[in-house]
Amino acid sequence: MLQPYTSLNSNLFTKHAGTTLSIDLNAIIANYNYLIQKVKPAHCAAVIKADGYGLGMLPIAKALKKTSCKNFFVAYLDEGIALRSILNQDYNIFILNGLFPRDARPFIKHHLTPVLNDLNQIKIWVQICKEANINYPAAIQFDTGMSRLGLNENDLKILQQKALSPFNPVLIISHLACADEPKHPNNLLQLKKFKFFKKFFPSVTASLSASSGIFLGEAWHFDLTRPGAALYGLNPVPNQKNPMNPVVTLKSKILQIRVIPKNTPIGYGATYISHRPLKLAIIAIGYGDGFSRSLSNKAYVRHVHYPEIPLPIVGKISMDCLCIDISPLSDNTIQLQDEIEIIGPHSPIELIAQNANTIGYEILTSLGNRYHRIYI
Amino acid sequence: MLQPYTSLNSNLFTKHAGTTLSIDLNAIIANYNYLIQKVKPAHCAAVIKADGYGLGMLPIAKALKKTSCKNFFVAYLDEGIALRSILNQDYNIFILNGLFPRDARPFIKHHLTPVLNDLNQIKIWVQICKEANINYPAAIQFDTGMSRLGLNENDLKILQQKALSPFNPVLIISHLACADEPKHPNNLLQLKKFKFFKKFFPSVTASLSASSGIFLGEAWHFDLTRPGAALYGLNPVPNQKNPMNPVVTLKSKILQIRVIPKNTPIGYGATYISHRPLKLAIIAIGYGDGFSRSLSNKAYVRHVHYPEIPLPIVGKISMDCLCIDISPLSDNTIQLQDEIEIIGPHSPIELIAQNANTIGYEILTSLGNRYHRIYI
Repeated sequence: MLQPYTSLNSNLFTKHAGTTLSIDLNAIIANYNYLIQKVKPAHCAAVIKADGYGLGMLPIAKALKKTSCKNFFVAYLDEGIALRSILNQDYNIFILNGLFPRDARPFIKHHLTPVLNDLNQIKIWVQICKEANINYPAAIQFDTGMSRLGLNENDLKILQQKALSPFNPVLIISHLACADEPKHPNNLLQLKKFKFFKKFFPSVTASLSASSGIFLGEAWHFDLTRPGAALYGLNPVPNQKNPMNPVVTLKSKILQIRVIPKNTPIGYGATYISHRPLKLAIIAIGYGDGFSRSLSNKAYVRHVHYPEIPLPIVGKISMDCLCIDISPLSDNTIQLQDEIEIIGPHSPIELIAQNANTIGYEILTSLGNRYHRIYI
Repeated sequence: MLQPYTSLNSNLFTKHAGTTLSIDLNAIIANYNYLIQKVKPAHCAAVIKADGYGLGMLPIAKALKKTSCKNFFVAYLDEGIALRSILNQDYNIFILNGLFPRDARPFIKHHLTPVLNDLNQIKIWVQICKEANINYPAAIQFDTGMSRLGLNENDLKILQQKALSPFNPVLIISHLACADEPKHPNNLLQLKKFKFFKKFFPSVTASLSASSGIFLGEAWHFDLTRPGAALYGLNPVPNQKNPMNPVVTLKSKILQIRVIPKNTPIGYGATYISHRPLKLAIIAIGYGDGFSRSLSNKAYVRHVHYPEIPLPIVGKISMDCLCIDISPLSDNTIQLQDEIEIIGPHSPIELIAQNANTIGYEILTSLGNRYHRIYI
């Protein structure tokens, strides 16, 4: 017997929650406006898949309605359906992962635009258009060097040989694999290949670049850019100063303060043994909140009143809490419920990502459901 | 201006979703009944924090109502409030992370039992009890060697010296740090210390062991055990055959199939270059679905029709999809939308955890919101 699913939603988590996630919607708007200036006369879409990179697709889309943004990208059909509930048909919603054979109808019902990634998907869409004798809008993706989604040159040849009427794409896209490494030779190779594909669709809107691609220069902008990460404050130009406004602050509370003697094990597996007496704080965030267990014994956090002092995470991170060494804080005013900055001005996402051996994108999409979420 | 939060819930994700997460509630019930037999005459609580280890706290609690389980543990107050909405007062709900100074009232309103972790929390609770002249139930945690939450010997001394009437704990607990390593010397040290604390509360229910602790033997059972992981099919006895029934199946669909020539880069950063022509499948799961990016170029998945053939993940895992090498499948009947087993009989959670350099617990709590969830 199948049972319906009732999930624990983030909005159940009130100010009682141990950790607060603040999302600055005005910073997202400012980031969008910064990028639109940068790519002019090209346009800027907004990529808000994966629940807006973990920050909330719906509130972000509502905020972006205050900008000139008219094009939104998500990954899945279900994300698109949810998004359509708050965006009327003045806005285009593109579904990057395309459509499965039996899923064409909901696209039409909800006025969603699939990004068709292979001949099979195009065939399905042409069939739908023929049956209805309407040219339903769709985009086509070409693979220019990532071996991921999209048609290759062979597919294009076959496509050219077939009569596709009444189908014409409204957008052609591709995606850069190495845009965050400006000197990577693949960037120019992908640019060249995209121009090759574009020649076959001279009057169709073209889009190649996401956040980092925008910063490769004007040649990469074409008609429409598709930033995601940069909107959310992630640095699109690694190794340079981040030009984006920070969006995310994550602060957790001290659950308990304890003093331990020398030679005391801390946490699961006793992976940390105190070399001298330590003052510890247990704080209310764990890997069950999406704070990666790989940061155990590796990363630092900050007391909000003494942000200049890095406080190391000691021992394995637990599911619901973790332990930090607050001995470096000589001050005796540290109290239960004091706030500890996990992500913020002194703890940039990029640094956490580096310590977790991943990228800022994954730090964001891992943000958990048990935070009290505040939209500013 | 603060805005209310509207989250993308898992229950938005229909059968159109690229990945299906099946949760076998009967297996959870069977696991509970197996453990209750094992610990008899002790009792078994159920730990369902972190949204039931990512599998859905509410449906799991509903299922466990069909067993003799009367005690439930969560980490946070808000989890407890949500849980109380489906469990009447015949069931005890314990909040492991205790209470913050200003949060005592909601505990009483919703009949939730805090696990008091330090003298400060006890003081608050005693005050509440005095004001109402009622002995509201609460548990006390003692730290026996994890340096995490709980009172130490010094705290106990202070506690003994103070008049705590009308407060008496209904439960004393501690937590083992190394229970999954049966030969770790800390297990016996913690047992000894717990017995020391227990002597001061001779008539109070005592609880030391979670899943792995149960398998250390009868001496670790006391009155109440608190399994979580084992209920959800994780192996409580690493390096031995898993005695638990599997609970989770995760299957993703093929979005696209492509053939690439020799020397073609795959995915972000071009971290994988084909050494010969390859047949690839792009499947609809990524790190945005909680499938760790650290598994890039490392883990294997299986085609459901050919589960004996491991298919390697090639290239970096993207946010919404990943690429697998299906060249080992000689069969030409592989089609779009075919299912790929990510977690299942041939892909145990423990193996994925090992490849991701973490534990099965984190694989479960990371399970994303974009799966079509089916409860069996």
